[in-house]
Amino acid sequence: MKQKKFRTEHQQFVVEGVKVVKELLLSPYKVDAVYVLGEVADEIAAMSSVVPSIITEQQLQKISNLETPNNVLALASIPQSSFSFQQVKNKLSLALDTINDPGNLGTIIRTAAWFAMDTIICSPNTTDAWSHKTVQAAMGALFRTNVVYADLKKVVQEFNSAQTPVYATTLDGTDIYKTTLSPNGLIVIGSESHGVSPELLALINTKLLIPSFSSGAAESLNAAVAAGVVCGEFRRRVHSR
Amino acid sequence: MKQKKFRTEHQQFVVEGVKVVKELLLSPYKVDAVYVLGEVADEIAAMSSVVPSIITEQQLQKISNLETPNNVLALASIPQSSFSFQQVKNKLSLALDTINDPGNLGTIIRTAAWFAMDTIICSPNTTDAWSHKTVQAAMGALFRTNVVYADLKKVVQEFNSAQTPVYATTLDGTDIYKTTLSPNGLIVIGSESHGVSPELLALINTKLLIPSFSSGAAESLNAAVAAGVVCGEFRRRVHSR
Repeated sequence: MKQKKFRTEHQQFVVEGVKVVKELLLSPYKVDAVYVLGEVADEIAAMSSVVPSIITEQQLQKISNLETPNNVLALASIPQSSFSFQQVKNKLSLALDTINDPGNLGTIIRTAAWFAMDTIICSPNTTDAWSHKTVQAAMGALFRTNVVYADLKKVVQEFNSAQTPVYATTLDGTDIYKTTLSPNGLIVIGSESHGVSPELLALINTKLLIPSFSSGAAESLNAAVAAGVVCGEFRRRVHSR
Repeated sequence: MKQKKFRTEHQQFVVEGVKVVKELLLSPYKVDAVYVLGEVADEIAAMSSVVPSIITEQQLQKISNLETPNNVLALASIPQSSFSFQQVKNKLSLALDTINDPGNLGTIIRTAAWFAMDTIICSPNTTDAWSHKTVQAAMGALFRTNVVYADLKKVVQEFNSAQTPVYATTLDGTDIYKTTLSPNGLIVIGSESHGVSPELLALINTKLLIPSFSSGAAESLNAAVAAGVVCGEFRRRVHSR
C-alpha cells in the first residue's frame, strides 16, 4: 500500500491516526479494514461499519507509514469517480496542473474544502491524491472532496464550449483585485516551478495575478498559499454582495 | 551545522542550491564560506564576496543536508537583530506564536515577502528560522526579511501602548471581510493545533476569522495558507483605496 503500483492494483489506500480515521469513518468512502490498538478500540468500533481488528503496538509499527504511529490504521477503497461537467457547471471548482509535491496537494485539498470547493480536477501527472503524505496533509478534507484525474485540456474545452468561465493564475495576468470574478467556473492552479502549462494556458481567457506588494524582488508564492488567496478572493466577492 | 546547538554556538547556518545561494549573495547577509562544484564555480565567484572553495561531488554529498545536493553550499552568519517597535510602527508586520513546522515557517516567510511585510516576530518557541528546512522552504525570502525572536506579550503591549492595532486570527473572531483593517500594525498567527495562546490573545483587541464557506464540516486551514489569505486581504484594502 506504500507504493503507487499497489494502490493502483488494489484500488485501496491507507489512512492513519485517530482524527483522520474518524473523518474517514464519517465520510461516504468505503472502508475495507480497520486495525486498532486496544485503548481506542471501542471508540473506533462505535463509528465503524467494519469490525476493527485489534493489533499490538509492534504490529502497528510494522504496517504504519508514520514515524510515530497513532493508534489506528484503516484501509479504504479509492473512489472510482470521473469528471462530469454537468455536476460542476454551477459551482466553483479547482483544477491542478502538475502539482508534484504530495504535501502541497494535501494542503490544497484542505484549502479547497475550507472554501467549499468540492471538486478538484487534477492533471494526470499531478501527484497521487491517495498517497500517504497527501492523505495525511489533507487531514480528512480529501474524504469530503470529489478529487478526479482528467485531461485538463478537454476539461477546459468543455467549460469554454458552455461559456462557463475558466481562470488561470499566472505571473502576467490581470490584478485579481481589479478583475470581475464569477461565482461559478474553474480556477486552474499551475505547478510552482513552471506555472500552468503553455498548451493549457492558450485555451484560457482570463489570467489572474495575485499582485506582489514587494519592490521588485524575485518573490514567489507557494502553490497552496496561492490557491488559498485566490479561492478566498472568489468567495469574498460572492460573500460581499 | 545540522543541529541547532551548533547553529547557536557558531551563529552560522547553511544555505544550499544555486538559486537560493544566489539570493543569499545578493542580500545584506554576511557570507562566511562558499563550497562549489567546478561547473558553477565561475558563476558563483562572480557574485560572491568570499572566494569559493571548489569541492568534488563526493565532498558536497558529505556536507549537504539535501538528498540530491545542488552544486553549491554556503555558510552564512545569523543576523543579530532584535525587535524594535520604532522600526515597524508605521508598517504592517507579522507575529508568529508557536509555529512548530520548519516547512510551514519557511512558507510563511515567503508569503510575508510576497506581501511586502518585512518584519516577522517569532515567539521564542517558534521553530528555528535558520534551520535547513526553513531556509530551503523560504527560497531566499528569509534574506530579505527581518526575522526576530521576542516575547510576544511584550511586543503586543508595546503596540497597545502606542495605540497601534494588533490583530489575531482565531476561530471565534469577526469576519475579516467585514472588519476595518489598518494599513499598519501587527497580525498574530497562531499554531495550527492550538491557535494563538490564551495569555497572548487576552491582550489583543481585534480577533479576525477567515470565514469557512463549507457547510459546517470540521475544516481547518494550514497556518501558511491562513497567513496568505489574511496578508492578502490587508494589502487588498490599501491597494483598492
